[in-house]
Amino acid sequence: MKQSQLFTKTSKTAPAEEQSTNAKLLLRGGFIHKEVAGAYAFLPLGLRVLNNIIAIIREEMNVLGAQEVLLTSLQNPELWKKTKRWDDSVIDVWFKTTLNNEAELGLANTHEEPIAALMSHHLSSWRDLPVSAYQFQTKFRNELRVRSGLLRSREFIMKDLYSFSRSQEEHEMFYELAKKAYRAIFDRIGIGEQTLLTFASGGSFSKYSHEFQTLCEAGEDTIFVCGKCRVAVNKEIIKEQPTCPQCSSKNLEEKRAIEVGNIFNLGTKFSELLGLKFVDEQGTTHAVVMGSYGIGPGRAMGTAVELFHDEKGIRWPAAIAPFSCHLLAFPGAAPETAATYEKFKDAGISVLYDDREVSPGEKMADADLLGMPWRLIQSEKTGAEKVEMKKRDEKNVETLDITDVIKRLKP
Amino acid sequence: MKQSQLFTKTSKTAPAEEQSTNAKLLLRGGFIHKEVAGAYAFLPLGLRVLNNIIAIIREEMNVLGAQEVLLTSLQNPELWKKTKRWDDSVIDVWFKTTLNNEAELGLANTHEEPIAALMSHHLSSWRDLPVSAYQFQTKFRNELRVRSGLLRSREFIMKDLYSFSRSQEEHEMFYELAKKAYRAIFDRIGIGEQTLLTFASGGSFSKYSHEFQTLCEAGEDTIFVCGKCRVAVNKEIIKEQPTCPQCSSKNLEEKRAIEVGNIFNLGTKFSELLGLKFVDEQGTTHAVVMGSYGIGPGRAMGTAVELFHDEKGIRWPAAIAPFSCHLLAFPGAAPETAATYEKFKDAGISVLYDDREVSPGEKMADADLLGMPWRLIQSEKTGAEKVEMKKRDEKNVETLDITDVIKRLKP
Repeated sequence: MKQSQLFTKTSKTAPAEEQSTNAKLLLRGGFIHKEVAGAYAFLPLGLRVLNNIIAIIREEMNVLGAQEVLLTSLQNPELWKKTKRWDDSVIDVWFKTTLNNEAELGLANTHEEPIAALMSHHLSSWRDLPVSAYQFQTKFRNELRVRSGLLRSREFIMKDLYSFSRSQEEHEMFYELAKKAYRAIFDRIGIGEQTLLTFASGGSFSKYSHEFQTLCEAGEDTIFVCGKCRVAVNKEIIKEQPTCPQCSSKNLEEKRAIEVGNIFNLGTKFSELLGLKFVDEQGTTHAVVMGSYGIGPGRAMGTAVELFHDEKGIRWPAAIAPFSCHLLAFPGAAPETAATYEKFKDAGISVLYDDREVSPGEKMADADLLGMPWRLIQSEKTGAEKVEMKKRDEKNVETLDITDVIKRLKP
Repeated sequence: MKQSQLFTKTSKTAPAEEQSTNAKLLLRGGFIHKEVAGAYAFLPLGLRVLNNIIAIIREEMNVLGAQEVLLTSLQNPELWKKTKRWDDSVIDVWFKTTLNNEAELGLANTHEEPIAALMSHHLSSWRDLPVSAYQFQTKFRNELRVRSGLLRSREFIMKDLYSFSRSQEEHEMFYELAKKAYRAIFDRIGIGEQTLLTFASGGSFSKYSHEFQTLCEAGEDTIFVCGKCRVAVNKEIIKEQPTCPQCSSKNLEEKRAIEVGNIFNLGTKFSELLGLKFVDEQGTTHAVVMGSYGIGPGRAMGTAVELFHDEKGIRWPAAIAPFSCHLLAFPGAAPETAATYEKFKDAGISVLYDDREVSPGEKMADADLLGMPWRLIQSEKTGAEKVEMKKRDEKNVETLDITDVIKRLKP
């Protein structure tokens, strides 16, 4: 894409009220726009990152055999009254609204109730199970405080996956596969190394549930990390579980972290209250065993910025970067760079081409702020056949033939 | 996809409260699920249709050079007060909600205000224009009556495109291109033949705006059609425009129709009130000229069902069908059909494979209800190398070699 055509502009300063690094850099780069406190619009570059993350998650959900759906935001209070979760004292982040006829509706903050009720229309026999379904859907949460940019919003897209099994054993098999899928997702997004499987309270149906916590000073969570196993225990259960659940080490270190994913055993709580049952081979009726599995793609994006930035801007992990490279035309090399841009496009390389009539300094500052993995400069010095190539997170600059660069960047 | 793994089931009856054909057939087929009146969840088959429509629209938006964004649902009252559209007496379909600190927020029913305000952070010079931006985003509309299934919902995804131009002339150039893009979209979706360019009130900034109205008895709109030009005049302006705007014929026929798209001149109304201005080459400041362009992909889906169905079920247009063919395994041919399914998948053909252990009659009834463009049957009679092929909307059945079928269906 030609940068001259991109409608967003970068900015040297961030709005004074923003406190988090991710919001500051994403706003300065024109990736996002703050609509109201806790609700950000995604602009072209930001939407590209978000969609890259969504595409990775979708692929891993499909590997699990999960089926994609799209549930509604508007929620029927009747369903939530059945599980006693309609009341604001039980779920304190409800946004509610009213129909013109005065009937009250909720805006979904999660979707266990509607999906369990929906499934009861389709599942009835042991033959129909196990199944799993997921969606990328907006959640609304009436958070009191929102100071962390994309890390905690009042409106955000969430990938929520729900599993439906015939028994606790069958559920646990899926749960283990989901755990592996989550590990694969965070690895692919580029935050896997910093992301630890974290043991959390299992509720009434299992000893533990699990969170995926990314080590980061900007995180709102506190976890206790076993240096040996690279697993952690979350704050809620550290009193009852003061040792590493894997190696029993007592040597756990307190750290700040961002919860980037969670997987949870729901047992039969929702299926019993909402009538989600199946008949087994012997004709006996059972409640379906459920699990839920969440990742916020926007939070993952904010986390990547918190982890990968320097004083000049963002350093996107390659798999989620808006473009794989940023091609800058310096004075005296505009026609040459335009030709290079066409060659890159023909080779299928995703490239942001800075064809603007601004100074080399401004272009380099924007390249650092916007954070594509590779910066390529063509100038009078390089001529038409060569380009200066630099990795965003390294200092070393190489002058290479364009054909070699194309070979290197070609997907 | 194997039908045995699809979690949705078909149903012989529709819920009694549903009045519209599209809702009845889509619910019976398990394409959608009614969450509350006017809000439908999209299940795997329905989401495939919706995504096919979205993909077509996105391609045509990108051809226009429009940049994709994703704005928020939560809306800041301050912006809407500036344009005097916050009050429920001005926009009577607002859903509103409140933050925990009692501050009021809106749920977007359209996005002119936020996008104009957003653009004012990025556009300032004549060099920054023209630009256009679009999104696929949920709209919330507090409609009093919702009896038409996907044709009128309280929550629905809308593609809204906004254009920003330096002058009325520049705006009109884009407006004409958008008109052509809309024509291409409806043609590609498969409802083009029934969809008429319809002249509607232009507001304060132009003589006309335009709607795209699909002729259909189930439509809520009344239009007046010129049989010669295949254009129409909408009800609101028929008194002042009682003749065909193209050929001046007085012979206009009253018809029922569904508004599947609209394009609108906004002039400088929003940009003046929201401070969206630019400085021209001479240093003079002007308000930006805006246009807005809407299509509801879900409404287009409902319209396709209203147009293309018979007493047995849906007949999806090929471009938006969930799968291009439905392969049924009849008794005695299960292993052969399983092998055929693999061959189809290898050839990149999108196929729903009915591998369920149910009767041939039930499989054929489901194939008619679900409405894939081609039905393929393998049975003891056809053997391993042949298949019975039938178009959903034709009676003729051909027995063909599998290799020939693959050639025909290969994308």
